[in-house]
Order: sequence, then C-alpha cells, then structure tokens
Amino acid sequence: MDVLWLLRNALQEQPHIAMPGAGWLPGEWMDGAGIQRSLRTLARKDGSHLTGYGMPAGYQPLRVLLAQRVEDQGIACSPRQIVTTRGATQAMDLISRLLVRPGDAVLVDDPGYYTLFGYLKLLGARLVGVPWTTQGPDAGALEQRILEHRPKVFFTNTVLHNPTGVNLTPAVAHRVLQLAERHDLVIVEDDIYGDLASGLPARLAALDQLERVIYVSSFSKTVSASLRVGYLACRYEIAESLTDLKLLTSLTTSEIDERLIYQLLTDGYYRKHLEKLRARLRKARAEAVRNLERAGLEVYREAEDGLFIWARRDGTENATPLAAEAASQGIMLAPGALFRPQQEASPWLRFNAAGCAHPAIFRFLEAAASHA
Amino acid sequence: MDVLWLLRNALQEQPHIAMPGAGWLPGEWMDGAGIQRSLRTLARKDGSHLTGYGMPAGYQPLRVLLAQRVEDQGIACSPRQIVTTRGATQAMDLISRLLVRPGDAVLVDDPGYYTLFGYLKLLGARLVGVPWTTQGPDAGALEQRILEHRPKVFFTNTVLHNPTGVNLTPAVAHRVLQLAERHDLVIVEDDIYGDLASGLPARLAALDQLERVIYVSSFSKTVSASLRVGYLACRYEIAESLTDLKLLTSLTTSEIDERLIYQLLTDGYYRKHLEKLRARLRKARAEAVRNLERAGLEVYREAEDGLFIWARRDGTENATPLAAEAASQGIMLAPGALFRPQQEASPWLRFNAAGCAHPAIFRFLEAAASHA
Repeated sequence: MDVLWLLRNALQEQPHIAMPGAGWLPGEWMDGAGIQRSLRTLARKDGSHLTGYGMPAGYQPLRVLLAQRVEDQGIACSPRQIVTTRGATQAMDLISRLLVRPGDAVLVDDPGYYTLFGYLKLLGARLVGVPWTTQGPDAGALEQRILEHRPKVFFTNTVLHNPTGVNLTPAVAHRVLQLAERHDLVIVEDDIYGDLASGLPARLAALDQLERVIYVSSFSKTVSASLRVGYLACRYEIAESLTDLKLLTSLTTSEIDERLIYQLLTDGYYRKHLEKLRARLRKARAEAVRNLERAGLEVYREAEDGLFIWARRDGTENATPLAAEAASQGIMLAPGALFRPQQEASPWLRFNAAGCAHPAIFRFLEAAASHA
Repeated sequence: MDVLWLLRNALQEQPHIAMPGAGWLPGEWMDGAGIQRSLRTLARKDGSHLTGYGMPAGYQPLRVLLAQRVEDQGIACSPRQIVTTRGATQAMDLISRLLVRPGDAVLVDDPGYYTLFGYLKLLGARLVGVPWTTQGPDAGALEQRILEHRPKVFFTNTVLHNPTGVNLTPAVAHRVLQLAERHDLVIVEDDIYGDLASGLPARLAALDQLERVIYVSSFSKTVSASLRVGYLACRYEIAESLTDLKLLTSLTTSEIDERLIYQLLTDGYYRKHLEKLRARLRKARAEAVRNLERAGLEVYREAEDGLFIWARRDGTENATPLAAEAASQGIMLAPGALFRPQQEASPWLRFNAAGCAHPAIFRFLEAAASHA
C-alpha cells in the first residue's frame, strides 16, 4: 500500500461503492457546462490556428489573464513571470528537475501531497518532513530541519492544505519566510485548492512577492482535471529556465486546452461556478463532519471551506489496516501513512467532503469501531 | 547556438521571413478542419464526462483504436500494451526516466533528434552516436559502440528519419535487431513521421513484435502539434511501469485532447487528409530539391516522401556560421551540428520541404555561395 497503490486505486476504473479517499471533486461538481461552452466557442473558429505547437511559455492571452489572477491575490506579477504547465503536477516536476539533484535534502509537508513525494524520490531526493500544524508548517521544526539538513527547497501546500484541510496563518507565513530568507531557501507554494477558499487566505507569495517563492496553481480542482491546465509564477529568470526545461521535456503544452480554459475564464461564468461550488462543498463538509463524529472519529480541525477532512479514531495507531479492510469492501479510504514522506504509520485518514455522501462509508466505520 | 537556441527560435513568435529549418508542417497543412469537426462533436455532448482525471494509461477507446493502428503495421499489439502520452516527447521522457540512470551510456542516431539529446543529457546520460547511413543505422559501428560502451538502450528514428529523411531498410532492421538480441539492448523506435510515408516501410517493431522494441508515435506531425497526443506500445510489464511513471510525473494525460483525436480518427476523414498531405508534401519536396540543387547544394539522398531534406554545399566543413548569418537575415536554417550528440561540426543542413516555398531562402543560399 503506497503512493502508487492509492493513485492506481483512485484512477483505475475499479468498481468502488464509495471513494471518500479520493483527492478531487466528483465530475458533476466540476464545470462541465463551462467546458461545453468553451468547446462550442472554439468549434466556431477556423481550426487552422489549433494545429501549431504554440508558444513555449504558454498561450499568451492566458498568461496575461493568469498574471491578473495572481495580482488579484496581492502578488505583483507580469505575464512574463507566468509559465503554463500540464496541471500543477508538471509545474512541480519542472521545478524539481530544475532545483533538485540526486542526494539533495528537500523539505516537504508532513503530512503532505503524496504524488510530490513520489517524483521527488524518483529524482533521488532525500525527503525531510516538516510537521504540519493547525496553523501551517511548524516553524520551530522547520528551522531545526534547515540547520540539520541544509536543504535548498521547501515544497508546501498552504491554502486548504492537502491532507489536513487547514490554512496557513499570516503569522506562520511571515515566520517561514524569515527562515527562508535567513537560510537562502527557495519555497514552492502549491496553491491548487485556493479557488475553493472564500475570502483572501494568507499566502507566502503574497508576503514575499515572488522573491524566493515559486507559486503554483491549476484548474484541475475547480474546472476539469481532464484539461490538465496549470501554471506557475516566479521571478523572470527562473521562469525562463523553467520554460527551457519545459521545451526540452515536453516542447509545449496543449494550446487547445489553454484556449478552452481561457474561454471559460473570460465568459463571465467562472466566478458564479466557484460560488456555487464553495456553497455546495460547505454543506457537504458540515454533513460529512457530523457523520464522521457520529461514527466515533475525531476531526483534526473544523474548517469552513475546501475538500479535505483529516480525522482519526481515538486509540488507533495506524489507519492503514482499516483502509485495507475498507478497500476489500469497495470503499476507498486514504490512510494517513500515504501522506507521510516515508509512509510512517499514522492514525489519521483523509476524507473528501464531496465523496462522503454514501452511507456505506459510515456503516463501515461504525462496524470497524465495534469489532476493533 | 544549441538545441535550446533552435527550439526557442523555432517556437518563439519571432518575425521570420522563412523557416526552412523548422521540424514540423505549417499550421495550414495540418488537420485544422478535422479538429474543428471533433470540437463540434465533443461540444454537443454533456460536458460532465470531461471533468475527471481519466484513466492512467489513457482514454480506453483511443487505446483500442491505437492498438489497431499498430496492428495495421504488422505489429501484434493489444490495448493493454498502449500508453497514451503528451506527444511523443513525453513518451521518450518517460522511457528515458525508466531505463536511463545518470552516467549510463545511451545510443542515439548521429545525426538524430536534438530534443531527445537535450533531455537524455538532462538525465545525466552519456550520449554515444551511431552513424546514420542511407540505409539506417550503421550496423558495424553499432556493434563496435555496444562492445565499447555496454549501453542498455538505443533510441532511433527509423521511418523518414529526422534529419536525413531516409528510411531504415529491412536488411539493416534485421541486423540491428540481431545485435540488440545478442547484447540485450532495448530499442526505442521513434515513428512520429510514419503516417507521412506511403506504403509499408520497414519498422523494427514489425520484425521484433515488441519483444525488445518500445514503439513511439504521435499525431503532432499530421493532425496538430497543439493537441499533444502521442502514444507508446511495448511489452505489457513495461507498459505498466511506464503508466506508473506517468501517474507519478503527470497523473493523467488530457482526456479531452484524447477524445478529440479519437473523434478525428473515427470520423472517416483522417485517411483522406493523409493522402492529400502526402501528395502536397511530395510536390513541395521535389520543388525544394530542385531549388536546393540549383542553389548549388548537394542532397544527401533523394527520397519520395516526408518532411526532411538533408543537404550540404561541397567544401563546407561546418554549416553553423551559415545558419547564424541566415538567422540575422530572418531565415531560420537548421545546421547539422544541432543534430549531433555533442554538437560536433557538420557540413549538412536540414530543410523542411513544407517550409521552402519562400524564394528568399534560395537567394540567400546563392548569395552566400558566391561570397563564400
């Protein structure tokens, strides 16, 4: 049971009764209508402009728009600082390949994003976990890890953190950046869940203004994972190097997909879609938390928005056997060990608010509790 | 002047008068109409099935269709042996990351595909060039390189070879596979230009039946580079490992793009498009060869089909200065050194038959000849 196990389970078309462990929204929650509108618009145009490689850094009008979106979060950004990618995953992969050499120590959230762990290990990096707290990374532990391992990079997911669902606080953000400054650390801020948050949550890039933060986001969690359109924003020199690396490893991204998302972001419906999505998620979230608590689980921290609920049963040391049993019954749970750099045992489970509708989930959890 | 120089020059929107050095067809030669038809069809369907991640190995109906296409080339192949990728480039990148470790010796065509050289070097591979002849790889040199460097992999582009435009002959294919067998070499066969060839040219995978050959192709040269839809075919166990690697490094490919290409391949127009394309290319090719010879260049080998013409001027040692001068006049040439593993000097230039319409190209070549 490892990262690949979870990815395969989640993405292979296996007959699951329920997938509360999945990391994304069900298809019908996403913006299928928006994609259809974009397809229609694009279909009306002459297709000959859809046959070229497009520009290395991405579809120019989209880059202008994305720079504006980044600006709207209080991060000064020009279009030349934007590089489009195949989802946030390619952004992370490019950044890793630029900054990480085999044997390097790399800081990651513990718990954190398992796919990132997978390809950092692929690059031969030594993963060093920074404990995640209800306020964000544990700054004390961060400093200690920096002094001990002399890492060059820290990958962190700051808003509606995967898997805990918690937001970084402004105070912790400031402290993390102080340490990064003092120890010359590059920070890669993964913000793929940001659009699911209401208000303007704290972001490292908003304090740092892309000095030593590389900002990464995508539309895979709000519009369509199938489009695979993501982007990164960073200092121009770094954006140039990452564009070269993108050229070498994948030439360009799909301009068709980038025109589709551009259409969708400019036809005026995206904001409404997000508002609907947040409201629906908030409702599902409250209900899931109730059901989890009723089933005897303790929730890590009540949060208003987002996908993830981090929960455990008192007295459990390691939730992995429970997940294995659930899998055998067609219920896909995400055990905490999967979200730890070395898959260390964890009592926690990650639940997806949008994937907790099926009563079988809670029946299973209660039954497991009773015969535990 | 290196690989990145050529890629940047070719893909950045710079005001070129002519780009005879480009590696692809002009947009209006591609299947823009087909893409438009596909967009229309897709736009009619409910969009909610366009929001998920899709399957790790690719859109299933497309995999079935691609397996059939591979079968049509005399290569026994089941859909489970097919993995879709973001163009052939991602296929090559995944295969390299699976098979190549830093310091490994890797065999490549000399001259060969420069983007491949770029990311093999990125992986820390030692590139060992296998001289390319008018029949394909030089088998004698191949054996000598194998004995000297003990490589595990040989990347070769066999049909309408980039940059020489030549096809591998059946006899050489057989000999290469004998050597691969004897020395336990994996061969990665890049066939991205195959659809531009008439008849059924020799392919390594057709002789070897995917035993030790990994077959790679895409639609970037015939339909749209912008779609970024490619695929690989290989032994099932390898396909499984490559799918895992694809999951870890990019999750899935764009199911929207894969549905677009599936539509396009099944609506019955693709074959006609290819026939028109081949005929148009043949005509442009003959004319380009005439003009090059009139401008005093010698063509490596007359070939009927395909994009590339490999040519040089007698007495030239190194075409790079000529390309630099051309660039300063807005003409993008591709000097032979770019296609050599260590960018060794070369008298040759790669011309793109579809990019040779502009008389300025030949005026420049003649002028350069006179004051040379």
